[in-house]
Amino acid sequence: MIAMSNWSMSTGTERDPPCNPLFLCVLSNTDTCRIPNISAAGATTDLNFYTPAGDAEIVVYGSPRSVPALPMKVDGAPTPAVMTRAALQLTDMPYLFVNAGLRIVPDVPVIDLGAAPGRDIRYGNAVSHADVIYGRAVHIGLQLGKLSDSIIIGESIPGGTTTALGVLTALGYDYGVSSSWKANPLKIKREVVRKGIDASMLTVDEARDDPMHAIASVGDPMMPAVAGLVYGITSSLDCSIILAGGTQMIAVFAILKHLGMDTDRISIATTKYVYQDRSFDFDAAIRDLGCCVHVVDPGFADSRMDGLRKYEDGEVKEGVGAGGAMYVAGMLGVTQKEMLDAVEAVYEELMGGNRLGKPR
Amino acid sequence: MIAMSNWSMSTGTERDPPCNPLFLCVLSNTDTCRIPNISAAGATTDLNFYTPAGDAEIVVYGSPRSVPALPMKVDGAPTPAVMTRAALQLTDMPYLFVNAGLRIVPDVPVIDLGAAPGRDIRYGNAVSHADVIYGRAVHIGLQLGKLSDSIIIGESIPGGTTTALGVLTALGYDYGVSSSWKANPLKIKREVVRKGIDASMLTVDEARDDPMHAIASVGDPMMPAVAGLVYGITSSLDCSIILAGGTQMIAVFAILKHLGMDTDRISIATTKYVYQDRSFDFDAAIRDLGCCVHVVDPGFADSRMDGLRKYEDGEVKEGVGAGGAMYVAGMLGVTQKEMLDAVEAVYEELMGGNRLGKPR
Repeated sequence: MIAMSNWSMSTGTERDPPCNPLFLCVLSNTDTCRIPNISAAGATTDLNFYTPAGDAEIVVYGSPRSVPALPMKVDGAPTPAVMTRAALQLTDMPYLFVNAGLRIVPDVPVIDLGAAPGRDIRYGNAVSHADVIYGRAVHIGLQLGKLSDSIIIGESIPGGTTTALGVLTALGYDYGVSSSWKANPLKIKREVVRKGIDASMLTVDEARDDPMHAIASVGDPMMPAVAGLVYGITSSLDCSIILAGGTQMIAVFAILKHLGMDTDRISIATTKYVYQDRSFDFDAAIRDLGCCVHVVDPGFADSRMDGLRKYEDGEVKEGVGAGGAMYVAGMLGVTQKEMLDAVEAVYEELMGGNRLGKPR
Repeated sequence: MIAMSNWSMSTGTERDPPCNPLFLCVLSNTDTCRIPNISAAGATTDLNFYTPAGDAEIVVYGSPRSVPALPMKVDGAPTPAVMTRAALQLTDMPYLFVNAGLRIVPDVPVIDLGAAPGRDIRYGNAVSHADVIYGRAVHIGLQLGKLSDSIIIGESIPGGTTTALGVLTALGYDYGVSSSWKANPLKIKREVVRKGIDASMLTVDEARDDPMHAIASVGDPMMPAVAGLVYGITSSLDCSIILAGGTQMIAVFAILKHLGMDTDRISIATTKYVYQDRSFDFDAAIRDLGCCVHVVDPGFADSRMDGLRKYEDGEVKEGVGAGGAMYVAGMLGVTQKEMLDAVEAVYEELMGGNRLGKPR
């Protein structure tokens, strides 16, 4: 790893700071998140469906508008949307949300790909019309790639690390997977994935030959959306792409590789909380897939707020493109201290008078 | 009028050609189009609802994909979408569609403002939550204004000249209104508008004081969408705006004026077929509202194709942002001849083997 600033490290050489970056966040649901104990990306398992909409509203307005609960555990670490909002505020970076199969639509305008929500992957038939989602995303990527020199793509999909494990396993990779839980329910996830792959009767060779088949079997609708955006954007010769996320974006990167895409201008940016997670072998993934990864430390160890320090203990870790948004903020000159102050201000605003929002 | 090139004229001085223009097309429905004989923007009155979706599919794919009929009369002039597609092809300009109250969603990804379709204006209660549509459009305009130095905004909404007459009348302006018909059913339109204004009990003073009230009473959902986009975009200090359309964009311009917006960086671009239409007093509107207008002649008088020459007789005239897209193409160096050739090619592609598509 090469230190790029006092708060980010990279496995490859860094590019020049972007002139007109654009941040995209793909919002999706998968019924996989309803499996008990699988995802901490919501107040309760029943409320997980609301998380992408709540995250989008927090990024735009600072608090949820239409959803009934905060997209996080009571007494838990805050949703990574607080980092994303802070990074977008500090950089004045333009951003757009993409609806790629939402059950709950936020009170925020979205680019609608007309995708259906993903099904529970245990039945091996998780995503309908993955090719149509991909094609529509290509169209949007083609347009947006002409407008920006660096597009950052994040996601919010509860249950998404399980579907990531599904596709990575289908493609024959065994790196483990990260989790929004401090104690990763990896055993449950592996069982779920095994059931899905058995049900789909997909072999590794078939999946590698046709990664859209792997998505359709045990993936989620975020995946063809991001893959299509990337393909469309890469048609613009001077636009680079940052996949903003941890294991889920490693899964997307693997899909891109097996689709035969040129990945030279594509890198991954994530938080140190994912990179340091021992339940996912990030270095093996980097080595196998040949991707350049940027790792950001938002400095929550020094935070005056309990909720943020919980990230240091392994809660939540990443999401809503937080790592990528902060990485670009760093490239544009934002310091770790400025970032931390901004995240604390957003978190405090979100929690209102709640004790978790108060300084210690 | 000042000649700007061999195929466009302007009432004001021209800006430099844009570096990274972006074309937007706002798609909406209003039940007003179901009033018999009011709109020619569809194969039949019953099929008018499909026109915005069909137009979007023609711009993207060259022909409709999901809608059951071409958005134009049998034996009639082609939809202006053929000009828009040709201009976008020649310039490689990025473009995005906005869903602002569609009944029929196209097989094309759209930015969804979550708007409901407009109601028949005769009942004086035409648009629900115009302020919400406006607010969401502001958000999108804010983002897109950071990515482009010139944004062109067109529309496709059958019945839209009647709702434009509605809002212009409510605001106390009497310029008449243009039409997609060769023989403008202006008498029917005036009766419809009179009923709507009577039903809403709106006075001119009230409408001028609160133009969103005029939209809610006798307008359509395209109007708050475009007004909001404009307001958002103008927050970016170096982005100019071209409202691409005829009388409908004059109505939007009047709304912007009465909302108190600074209109210095906003101009209107349209075809000569609207400008020359004697049922609308364009010069009076320009004088009253102080807007700069660019008028484009796509040279259809010299076309080898019957359908395009019908524009010279006053059929269809404008729509789908065709005038604005062609105006920008001209600024970027496209000649009238190149434009005509490209439009003919698109029209031929659309009609397939149909006799209307064949050279004379």
